[in-house]
Amino acid sequence: MTDLAPRRRRGGGRAGAAARRGAAVIEQRPWQMTINTDAPVEPLDDEGIAAIHDGAMRILEEIGIEFLNTEALDIFREAGCTVNGTNVRMDRHWVMEKLATAPSSFDLSPRNPERRITTGDNHLLFGNVSSPPNFWDLSTGRKVPGTREQCANLLRLTQYFNCIHFVGGYPVEPQDIHASVRHLDVLFDKLTLTDKVAHIYSLGAERVEDGIEMVRLSGGWTEEEFQAAPRMYTNINSTSPLKHDVPMIDGCLRMIRRNQAVVVTPFTLAGAMAPVTLAGAVALSISEALSAIALFQHVKPGCPCVIGTFTSNVDMKSGAPAFGTAEYMRATQMTGQMARFYGLPLRSSGVCAANVPDAQAAWETSNSLWAAIQSGSNLIYHAAGWLEGGLIASPEKFVIDCEMIQLIQRYFDPALTATTPGDIAFDAIADVGAQGHFFGTKHTQDRYEIAFHQPFLSDWRNFEAWDAAGGIWTADRAHAVYQNILGTFEEPAMDVAQRDALSDFVARRKAEGGAPTDF
Amino acid sequence: MTDLAPRRRRGGGRAGAAARRGAAVIEQRPWQMTINTDAPVEPLDDEGIAAIHDGAMRILEEIGIEFLNTEALDIFREAGCTVNGTNVRMDRHWVMEKLATAPSSFDLSPRNPERRITTGDNHLLFGNVSSPPNFWDLSTGRKVPGTREQCANLLRLTQYFNCIHFVGGYPVEPQDIHASVRHLDVLFDKLTLTDKVAHIYSLGAERVEDGIEMVRLSGGWTEEEFQAAPRMYTNINSTSPLKHDVPMIDGCLRMIRRNQAVVVTPFTLAGAMAPVTLAGAVALSISEALSAIALFQHVKPGCPCVIGTFTSNVDMKSGAPAFGTAEYMRATQMTGQMARFYGLPLRSSGVCAANVPDAQAAWETSNSLWAAIQSGSNLIYHAAGWLEGGLIASPEKFVIDCEMIQLIQRYFDPALTATTPGDIAFDAIADVGAQGHFFGTKHTQDRYEIAFHQPFLSDWRNFEAWDAAGGIWTADRAHAVYQNILGTFEEPAMDVAQRDALSDFVARRKAEGGAPTDF
Repeated sequence: MTDLAPRRRRGGGRAGAAARRGAAVIEQRPWQMTINTDAPVEPLDDEGIAAIHDGAMRILEEIGIEFLNTEALDIFREAGCTVNGTNVRMDRHWVMEKLATAPSSFDLSPRNPERRITTGDNHLLFGNVSSPPNFWDLSTGRKVPGTREQCANLLRLTQYFNCIHFVGGYPVEPQDIHASVRHLDVLFDKLTLTDKVAHIYSLGAERVEDGIEMVRLSGGWTEEEFQAAPRMYTNINSTSPLKHDVPMIDGCLRMIRRNQAVVVTPFTLAGAMAPVTLAGAVALSISEALSAIALFQHVKPGCPCVIGTFTSNVDMKSGAPAFGTAEYMRATQMTGQMARFYGLPLRSSGVCAANVPDAQAAWETSNSLWAAIQSGSNLIYHAAGWLEGGLIASPEKFVIDCEMIQLIQRYFDPALTATTPGDIAFDAIADVGAQGHFFGTKHTQDRYEIAFHQPFLSDWRNFEAWDAAGGIWTADRAHAVYQNILGTFEEPAMDVAQRDALSDFVARRKAEGGAPTDF
Repeated sequence: MTDLAPRRRRGGGRAGAAARRGAAVIEQRPWQMTINTDAPVEPLDDEGIAAIHDGAMRILEEIGIEFLNTEALDIFREAGCTVNGTNVRMDRHWVMEKLATAPSSFDLSPRNPERRITTGDNHLLFGNVSSPPNFWDLSTGRKVPGTREQCANLLRLTQYFNCIHFVGGYPVEPQDIHASVRHLDVLFDKLTLTDKVAHIYSLGAERVEDGIEMVRLSGGWTEEEFQAAPRMYTNINSTSPLKHDVPMIDGCLRMIRRNQAVVVTPFTLAGAMAPVTLAGAVALSISEALSAIALFQHVKPGCPCVIGTFTSNVDMKSGAPAFGTAEYMRATQMTGQMARFYGLPLRSSGVCAANVPDAQAAWETSNSLWAAIQSGSNLIYHAAGWLEGGLIASPEKFVIDCEMIQLIQRYFDPALTATTPGDIAFDAIADVGAQGHFFGTKHTQDRYEIAFHQPFLSDWRNFEAWDAAGGIWTADRAHAVYQNILGTFEEPAMDVAQRDALSDFVARRKAEGGAPTDF
């Protein structure tokens, strides 16, 4: 094999120079909720749906789910379910009766009313990466433990990009903040650097109560005003197979009782914590999710719940998880069919196994995003910034993903598929005839600015022009965009009193010692 | 902006070492024709289909298409169409009557009967990149004019990968061979280095006759045996807007008269040679394609024809063509609806605007490939190796694309969505319970080897393992795979007499001076 020529990189070339000047701000699509108008891809026929439903119901009826949370056990017992120790078995009729009260759609209303989002039906919403312990960017070129500064920078990207509709958990885990007060600092950053719908972790009563209170303070709401609408959400994972732990269920109960939203996402890797067959992994995932959602509907009928999917496969040689695979796509589509069967909003993800923002990262993430669309997903978690199966957050990947998401938003622009006489353009075709071109025609000029989506990261120049500008590969261009955004970022407007109230709350809770760290 | 750390590349790391040893041959999926079982994505309703159909028919009836080929003009005149100079107008009823004889599906049977492919209905076939004038790989790191050796190497990749079903035109234009004999040398390479269905260019009578004869010789067929089945194909592009040139139509007429297949692909970039509105660009493309296909069906009712789409958009600021965009995807899906309306097999492409095999190349190509699937395309041209809007062929991109195509083939494996009791795995879930995992279960072990698709290029290792192995980005891994394949490539079996006949033919035609170069 020959030695490879060095890949040129000149600190970002033109884009880098623009970033250093802080001059150019990228053009992006406006804030909008995208409506998914494509029919879902449905690999299961009615018999297949019935088979997975029956499998999930038999799991709930005959095997049961472990609930470690004693409050939940008491509620199940009182509701007439069969509780043996921590094992809860529930009748399918009871489960379906409970699911009947779950809304197929609900709004989430954060402190900025313009950021209200609708979750469910055919709405398509994207959120940033959540929870990687590590950070990687091209400046460092290494995988490093997350810090508060990196976390804040990723929150700035989350706020900056209009295509990101909601904020996930910590976009990177800030390991330089002690765990007892980490939630206070990051939530302060999240609620001041962004004005979008916020997430809190269900990591123990104190953190949940702190988080709810901080969101309430961020909006300057009375408790009554706060509870009048879902304003925030938590996402929990079951401990697959077949188990819900103590703090996750506790957090959800606290949230739903105050009319806030919960997302229940089993993490069922087929071949590891779930059957190697996708139908089995999906049936297990469905049973785990429904057991919790039925509980929540029993406690608070009509409370806003979302069913999540995180079913993928593992490399059977090494056990390494894989994402954006054929198996991942089909499992997501199948779960989508089941979510519609149960009438629940669906959460899936924009995920990959790749370690760096290269071609593999792009095709895996593209597959995840298309699977989300094909499945009719409503919330797409981790849609920007995810690498290494969720162990790394990367700002370059974040920027790349936002380019891909904007393309999807454009894809759902009804103008693209319009067929009015003006769209058919018979007269323009007749005018141009066989010799001309359409660049200068009135038909084109009339549509010049809106006809096509202008991407901010794609380089459509020919090789020579691209080469003359430094020959910058996409990841490096994304790095320049990232630096550019940070250099020009402006915090969203916030009432001083509300900001001070948040500050004071954080100071007081820190003085009290924060939250216990024995979880 | 900080300086960026150098991206590590160590000549391919482990993969490179394997390539140098020539030891490891990648595992790939077996040769198979993939069946597209997904329902197509249909952005147009019946009214939209009717509007585009009416637009295309009005173009044919009221504006007309220019045919520069005098034989075609004579045929149209004789058939009762309105011919004014080179302008041909045709009645929609006549067009639809002609289309009625076109098959919705046909087989192509090359010299190796095991490589027979079915074109049409829900068959999904992939071909290699065709016609870039230039070559780029990581070894040279520059864009260079194509050579015969590079062309042959790309043909070796075409033969090697089971997921590539048919051979396109020259995978790179070998500019080191004189144009008068280029077709002879490349067809010799193509017919000896591969045993898959071959393409010939419609670039003048002599080249077409040479090409047909060489394919006949490659199979050792009598003329009667050769014509008994479609064994090869040509692809033509109209000169949009509204024109078919002399040699393209001539080549098709020669092909269909000997029962060989033709693909008619207008190249309608919306905003340049087609209206800026997608419905208009599609209507124009449809009218151009149907005018030729109607001609061919009139000359030889039932002859194998495919309608092609190459509608995309341009950057309205620079005029640069874009591929894999939202506009490209919707235009492809809309054309798919029209192809089904007319009952014709569809050709689309796996294309991108990116200049190097990076993240942009992957997401653009991924979008093109998913659009092909969503549109119900049968032939996917340029599906491996395409860069820079078709101006560059790249072996790294070829390898990357084959990984993506294999993933699509796996996606259509019915096993993934099966819901038998064994798939639902209730007993395995009951056995494992809430404490265990599924790695070692009998249910998993029974399905160990077939449960998951094993990719050859994706790196699913965690960051540390990947980093320890050299931290190789995908493009560089693809380079190593490419070298590996070339180092171990074996030509497909070929009867010596047939190979000698090809050799002799090439020598004779070279002695005669080859083909005219005044095209």
